[in-house]
Amino acid sequence: RRGEMAKSTQLIDNEVFRAYATYTAIVLLKMMLMSLITAYFRITRKAFVNPEDTASFGKGESAKKFLRTDPDVERARRGHLNDLENIVPFVGIGLLYALSGPELSTALLHFRIFTGARIFHTFAYLIPLPQPGRGLSWAVGYSVTFSMAYKVLKTAWLL
Amino acid sequence: RRGEMAKSTQLIDNEVFRAYATYTAIVLLKMMLMSLITAYFRITRKAFVNPEDTASFGKGESAKKFLRTDPDVERARRGHLNDLENIVPFVGIGLLYALSGPELSTALLHFRIFTGARIFHTFAYLIPLPQPGRGLSWAVGYSVTFSMAYKVLKTAWLL
Amino acid sequence: RRGEMAKSTQLIDNEVFRAYATYTAIVLLKMMLMSLITAYFRITRKAFVNPEDTASFGKGESAKKFLRTDPDVERARRGHLNDLENIVPFVGIGLLYALSGPELSTALLHFRIFTGARIFHTFAYLIPLPQPGRGLSWAVGYSVTFSMAYKVLKTAWLL
Repeated sequence: RRGEMAKSTQLIDNEVFRAYATYTAIVLLKMMLMSLITAYFRITRKAFVNPEDTASFGKGESAKKFLRTDPDVERARRGHLNDLENIVPFVGIGLLYALSGPELSTALLHFRIFTGARIFHTFAYLIPLPQPGRGLSWAVGYSVTFSMAYKVLKTAWLL
Repeated sequence: RRGEMAKSTQLIDNEVFRAYATYTAIVLLKMMLMSLITAYFRITRKAFVNPEDTASFGKGESAKKFLRTDPDVERARRGHLNDLENIVPFVGIGLLYALSGPELSTALLHFRIFTGARIFHTFAYLIPLPQPGRGLSWAVGYSVTFSMAYKVLKTAWLL
Repeated sequence: RRGEMAKSTQLIDNEVFRAYATYTAIVLLKMMLMSLITAYFRITRKAFVNPEDTASFGKGESAKKFLRTDPDVERARRGHLNDLENIVPFVGIGLLYALSGPELSTALLHFRIFTGARIFHTFAYLIPLPQPGRGLSWAVGYSVTFSMAYKVLKTAWLL
C-alpha cells in the first residue's frame, strides 16, 4: 500500500489539481513565449545589449551601433517582467488553493479568468491597446490571485 | 480509499504544510503589494513609461513630458525585483522543505524569520532606512532559504 | 492510517520527486548566487544605485560619484533576470511533471540537462563566451521545460 502511494499519482488524479496543472502549464508557457518575442524584436530591430551578441554583424564600430535600446524590445521586456510579477504569485498561491479543497467549478472559474486576463494583457501590451484595457486585465488577474489567497489563508491559517 | 485520497486534503491537514501555506500566501501578497505601490508613485509623481498610459493627460507634447523616470517609482520597482529574486527561492525551496518532514517548531522558526525579514526589507527600502538595515534584512532572509535548502538536499538527495 | 498520511512523507519518499527536489534546490541556489555576484561587482567596481548604499564612502559629491552603472554589474543583473525568466517555469512545470508519473530515468534526463544548461549559461554570460554558446544553452533549458510541459498537459489536461 505504501509503495502504491509512493507513486504520488494521487494529486494528478484529483480534478482540481489537474485543472491547476493545465492552467499553470498554459500561463507559464505564455510567459516563456515572451522570451521569443523579445528575441524576435532584438533580431529584426537589430537592438542588442551584449557586445558578444553583435559580433556576427562585423567588428568594432560597425557592430557597436547595434548596442542600443529599441521601443518594441523594451515593450516586450516590460510585458515579460509584468508576467513574472503576476504569474509567480498565481502559480504559488494557486497550488495552495488547489490543495485547500475548493469546488471544481469555483476553481475552474478562478483559473479560467486569470488565464484569459493574462493572455488579453499580453495583447493589450504588445499591440498596444488604449488604456484602460491593459490596466483592467491586470486588475482582473490580480483580483483572482487575491481571491485564491483569501481561501488559502481561511483554510490553512497557522501562524 | 483511493477516492478519499484523491481529495488531496492530506497536505492541507498537515501542520507544517499549513504553516508553509500561510507564510507563502503572506509573502506573495506582500510582493503583489509592490505593484500597487509602484502604481501609486507613477500616478502621484506623474511618471510613466508607456505612451498609451499618458493619453488621458492630453495629446502630443503635453502628455510626452510624463514619459519619464522618477526616483520613488524606480525605488519601488527595485524593491519589487528584489522580492522576486528572494521570494521565488523561498516559495520553491520552502515547499520542498515542508515536504521533507521538519519539526513544526523548526519550520515555523524558518517561515517566521523569513517573513519578518522581508517585511522589514520593504520598509528599509521604501523609507529608506540607512544601511546596513536593508542589507542585513536581505541577508537574514537569504540565510533562512539557504538553511531550508540544506535540509531539502540532505533529505532528498538523488542526483 | 490517516494520521500517517498526514505526515506527508509520501512525496519525499518518491524517487522522481526526490530527484525534482534535488535539482530544483540546486538551480534555485544557483539563481540565488547571482545576488552575491552582483553585490561583489557593485562593491569592487564601486557602482551603486541607492544613495544610502554609498553613505560610507563620504558625504555629498564624493559619494554621489559612486551612483553609476557598471558593465559587469549590469551583466550579472541580466544573468539574474534571465535565470528568473527560465528557472521559474522549470520549478513550476517541473513540479507538475514530477507528479505526472514519468519514468525515473526520463525525469532524471530532463532535470540533469536543464541544470547543466543553466550552469553553462551562467558561465557563458559572465565570462562572456562568444555566441552562440549562451544562446544554445538558453535554448536547451527552454526545450527541456517545453518537453516537461507537453507531458504535463498530456497527463493532466482539464480545461
